[in-house]
Amino acid sequence: MKFGGTSVADLERIRNVAQRVKREVERGYQVAVIVSAMAGETNKLVSWARELSPLHDAREYDAVVSAGEQVTSGLLSIALQHIGVQARSWLGWQIPIRTSGMHGAAAITDVDTHLLEERLGQGQVAVIAGFQGLGPDNRITTLGRGGSDTSAVAVAAALKAERCDIYTDVDGVYTTDPRIVPRARKLEKISFEEMLEMASLGAKVLQTRSVELAMIHGVPVQVLSSFEDAPGTLVCDEEEIVEKQLVSGIAYSRDEAKVTLIRVPDKPGIAAAIFGPLADAGVNVDMIVQNVSEDGKFTDMTFTVGRAEFERAIHVIEQNIKSIGYQKLVTDKNVSKVSVIGIGMRAHAGVAQSMFRALAEKGINIQVISTSEIKISVLIASEFTDQAVRALHTAYGLDA
Amino acid sequence: MKFGGTSVADLERIRNVAQRVKREVERGYQVAVIVSAMAGETNKLVSWARELSPLHDAREYDAVVSAGEQVTSGLLSIALQHIGVQARSWLGWQIPIRTSGMHGAAAITDVDTHLLEERLGQGQVAVIAGFQGLGPDNRITTLGRGGSDTSAVAVAAALKAERCDIYTDVDGVYTTDPRIVPRARKLEKISFEEMLEMASLGAKVLQTRSVELAMIHGVPVQVLSSFEDAPGTLVCDEEEIVEKQLVSGIAYSRDEAKVTLIRVPDKPGIAAAIFGPLADAGVNVDMIVQNVSEDGKFTDMTFTVGRAEFERAIHVIEQNIKSIGYQKLVTDKNVSKVSVIGIGMRAHAGVAQSMFRALAEKGINIQVISTSEIKISVLIASEFTDQAVRALHTAYGLDA
Repeated sequence: MKFGGTSVADLERIRNVAQRVKREVERGYQVAVIVSAMAGETNKLVSWARELSPLHDAREYDAVVSAGEQVTSGLLSIALQHIGVQARSWLGWQIPIRTSGMHGAAAITDVDTHLLEERLGQGQVAVIAGFQGLGPDNRITTLGRGGSDTSAVAVAAALKAERCDIYTDVDGVYTTDPRIVPRARKLEKISFEEMLEMASLGAKVLQTRSVELAMIHGVPVQVLSSFEDAPGTLVCDEEEIVEKQLVSGIAYSRDEAKVTLIRVPDKPGIAAAIFGPLADAGVNVDMIVQNVSEDGKFTDMTFTVGRAEFERAIHVIEQNIKSIGYQKLVTDKNVSKVSVIGIGMRAHAGVAQSMFRALAEKGINIQVISTSEIKISVLIASEFTDQAVRALHTAYGLDA
Repeated sequence: MKFGGTSVADLERIRNVAQRVKREVERGYQVAVIVSAMAGETNKLVSWARELSPLHDAREYDAVVSAGEQVTSGLLSIALQHIGVQARSWLGWQIPIRTSGMHGAAAITDVDTHLLEERLGQGQVAVIAGFQGLGPDNRITTLGRGGSDTSAVAVAAALKAERCDIYTDVDGVYTTDPRIVPRARKLEKISFEEMLEMASLGAKVLQTRSVELAMIHGVPVQVLSSFEDAPGTLVCDEEEIVEKQLVSGIAYSRDEAKVTLIRVPDKPGIAAAIFGPLADAGVNVDMIVQNVSEDGKFTDMTFTVGRAEFERAIHVIEQNIKSIGYQKLVTDKNVSKVSVIGIGMRAHAGVAQSMFRALAEKGINIQVISTSEIKISVLIASEFTDQAVRALHTAYGLDA
């Protein structure tokens, strides 16, 4: 069971979490709980570190911010004991949860389950501080923001848990954002692959890394509300989904920016000349489109990046103008990406065509198209985002 | 260097502390810094633990409250690096500072200086989280309130430090409380033994345990202000004090309570019958007076306890009325203890007489007397506390 910051925001909510844990124990489960810091605590600690030095040592940053989860794990253990549930807190270094040495954004390399299993076997609930681990330097590492989801899945995988329940402030995964489409439906099940596309395409329910990890280790993840008692959405292996939807959901992201290089030489190595320096600078390029050259000499190259990386991308391209040799740079920060996702589309043709038709009927121009086995993404002008999501939700029969 | 909670209460003060540390580094010192939690943090964490469960698990309490010092150690390291001073934070378990398993009130058993010395030798300041250690169960322990002083002295002793500077919100040790006697003088030096009496008798400058530890290991401790630049008071070995004062200071404590058992049988074992059960119940008895029996059959027995333990003491005595066999219980919570302290009194007679005379001249009745080699304590009615302290301060020539 994993509880996020809003679920443990104050003592009353921590008591509520304790009751939920108790219920699972009474159902006969051995329970490991992963907790985030109380809502607001991490932000406070981060702001202190930043205020003292904008370029702070990541190792010290980790020592500071990991304190939030430490406090919650102790408090929840106390709350559990108070209602008669055996429990103890575990910090990353005590288990240990070993990670890479990349402080502030470490990757979990190993979870030692030896001690945990011994205590779980004795009927003791393990309350584990999320978001933290032990680096090769014997210092506390953190996994980056939202890392508690990853902690939870990694612990579940290591313990070979039956399920990893992620309690959060939404009650499941929806066919699309209910704020845009009020008739969006909660999905009973969704495959890892689909969830991965949903997560990375802007549906902020689960951290992308945690879904990847769950898929690799085959850990079923349930997303559910810590404030309600309804079942949530199970993220699981494709084989466990009997009725495969053609399209399971519509995702969108408004944080996109488009860059077009006009008249670059159409010669071997040109893509490397453009995207090599961008990769070196740590810019994540998402969609790439190269038009067929008309004259065999020059072509236009378009790519998209997250808006936060836009300025950096432009800077890199302009610095490499000589080696690339483009004539003009055209940019657009008012673009959104809208995607339809579904494992069912693997076996069906015509999914893309339905998308293009639905958008055309609304007069929405498609700027760039990108496809994978289980998703189709298009870039459109930002102003049409809501309209496009609604049209597609209806077109694929997702309206409740 | 040790900085208490008020010295690191906010980011501005943490920056100020960083400057003080930098100055010592620039003087050529290898510096280890011990920090408390930011003022208010520990109280907040303690109140959370208590609110969730009055009878909380001490191990979880330790996991929760130790987070405060962890945050400060990271923040001060960042502040030091920001002004060009090499530094890193050290948590109790990283050094490790090993302690007994008595969670919430652990005793330091060993400080491993291997890693610390290596880094100090490289010119790196060690910023150590005070108040915490690692228990035999591989869990975080805390040393009890005010334990950061003890951490500082233990680390100084282990590192064979030239000095342990305790920065606090007072600028040294005074001949008595300046709030009562405005002419109280700051002492340049005071012996460990005297400081121990001062500390345990209610002068709240240093924790008693830290002074004991400093005395055992011969670590000179300087008490000084973190907000001013004046030299403080050096607590050191008696031999280093050239001009030994007859009396160095006047201490007092208002938190006393007196219990008298009227007409207890005057027979062997009666003291054990009274004080055995009190000790078993964890009540600390301070002064004890047994009057000579008039008839050889019955006597009166008087003892004092801290006011916080008064109710418990009465309860224990009343429960053991049969085995003790007293006739009546007389109690008084309006009593104070006033003490004169000085290593010089070992070699001089008449110190007690001066005290009795000074109090008699003011018409203050002495209820109980207790003496040791270097101090004389008397119990008086609380209302006369200030008057008694002033009279004694003058009588022993301590007024500036």
